[in-house]
Amino acid sequence: MTRNKTAVVAVSGGMDSCVTAAIANQNYNLAFAHINYGQRTEKRELKAFTDIADYYKVEKRLVIDFSHFAKIGGSSLTDSRLEVTKADLTNKEIPSSYVPFRNANILSACTSWAEILNASAIFIGAVYEDASGYPDCRPQFFEAYEKMIDLGTKPETKIKIETPIIHFSKSEIVKKGLEIGAPLDLTWSCYQNEDEACGVCDSCAFRLRGFAQAGVDDPIMYKVRPKY
Amino acid sequence: MTRNKTAVVAVSGGMDSCVTAAIANQNYNLAFAHINYGQRTEKRELKAFTDIADYYKVEKRLVIDFSHFAKIGGSSLTDSRLEVTKADLTNKEIPSSYVPFRNANILSACTSWAEILNASAIFIGAVYEDASGYPDCRPQFFEAYEKMIDLGTKPETKIKIETPIIHFSKSEIVKKGLEIGAPLDLTWSCYQNEDEACGVCDSCAFRLRGFAQAGVDDPIMYKVRPKY
Repeated sequence: MTRNKTAVVAVSGGMDSCVTAAIANQNYNLAFAHINYGQRTEKRELKAFTDIADYYKVEKRLVIDFSHFAKIGGSSLTDSRLEVTKADLTNKEIPSSYVPFRNANILSACTSWAEILNASAIFIGAVYEDASGYPDCRPQFFEAYEKMIDLGTKPETKIKIETPIIHFSKSEIVKKGLEIGAPLDLTWSCYQNEDEACGVCDSCAFRLRGFAQAGVDDPIMYKVRPKY
Repeated sequence: MTRNKTAVVAVSGGMDSCVTAAIANQNYNLAFAHINYGQRTEKRELKAFTDIADYYKVEKRLVIDFSHFAKIGGSSLTDSRLEVTKADLTNKEIPSSYVPFRNANILSACTSWAEILNASAIFIGAVYEDASGYPDCRPQFFEAYEKMIDLGTKPETKIKIETPIIHFSKSEIVKKGLEIGAPLDLTWSCYQNEDEACGVCDSCAFRLRGFAQAGVDDPIMYKVRPKY
């Protein structure tokens, strides 16, 4: 099969973006973008990005440094004075890890790159249903973003925003990843630690519960491995 | 007068953003954001930003480094292998200085900051009518952007995108700036040089023609000062 379409994939290094990349890989040439934004686990996430890019033999890679999030503050992910809250999977409020308008910042950089690469899609592993209520993970947000791209780029530029796992639960993401051979062992999700995943932050909790519900063991190392 | 509203103003250091800041200053507390994006005249523009911020006694300042534009390339402003084209004020094509989707990148960072500051508006000095045909300067682009913000931020966040000079000609911008005391002598527009403005790039040409049509002398220094 000769592929003539390119997709920019926003790859944080987490499980969601890994499975999203695996889905994009079925129909597109891949270009991987990664954002450092001053989050606590920046180095570990970059390693996961590189490992996943190597796995898929992706040549086009863009690592973007967004230092402004750390300057702006307001999120426990980028402001060391704020505590990363322990998971409360029943909480419906916006958690302290919310980085304001993060996905819009990521997509704007990906769109600039996509326009230069003549890519026809941007894949982003946003999850709405089962996830933590970030407003910039809503399906309507991505629809509005795609319209805005149409108006803000050259007339010949047509870029779709693809969110293939937006309605998946974490266990469905795990199952999909296993089904299509996504290298979940290379991913990193923990908000807190860089050596062994903490097991107790929001992100670890959602991940562990997803694996448990899918009936498989999470292949990465945890400091503690509570039952969720 | 007590002001209780805050506006984030995107201040490049050019004439358009300076006049836009002067307009915002009539009704808002100011917060100034500036983007370094690897453009040739980055240092000189940052000086202009600082000078204008000092002039308006703005305390809240955010300097954002967008190194990805230089990595992405494709624009003569950020790619030293491409030549900054000399002005052709009759050209209707997108010029080589076009940085893909630049305004969307700027606005996404400004929106993140605005959400943390509880600002109610973002001012940006985009000009459509008389300017160089960048797609991300269209009024419809900014309308779509504002809708996208509504969907991608917290429910209580309401941020308007204000483009007060979007339908102005350059001479109207000069006149407006003089009328409301904008410090045009502190601004920098040249795409090419950092010491004396070149006088021949697109940006210098539009500026010089604007001053000429307004019937006043441009207070900054030029290497050459052609008649446009």
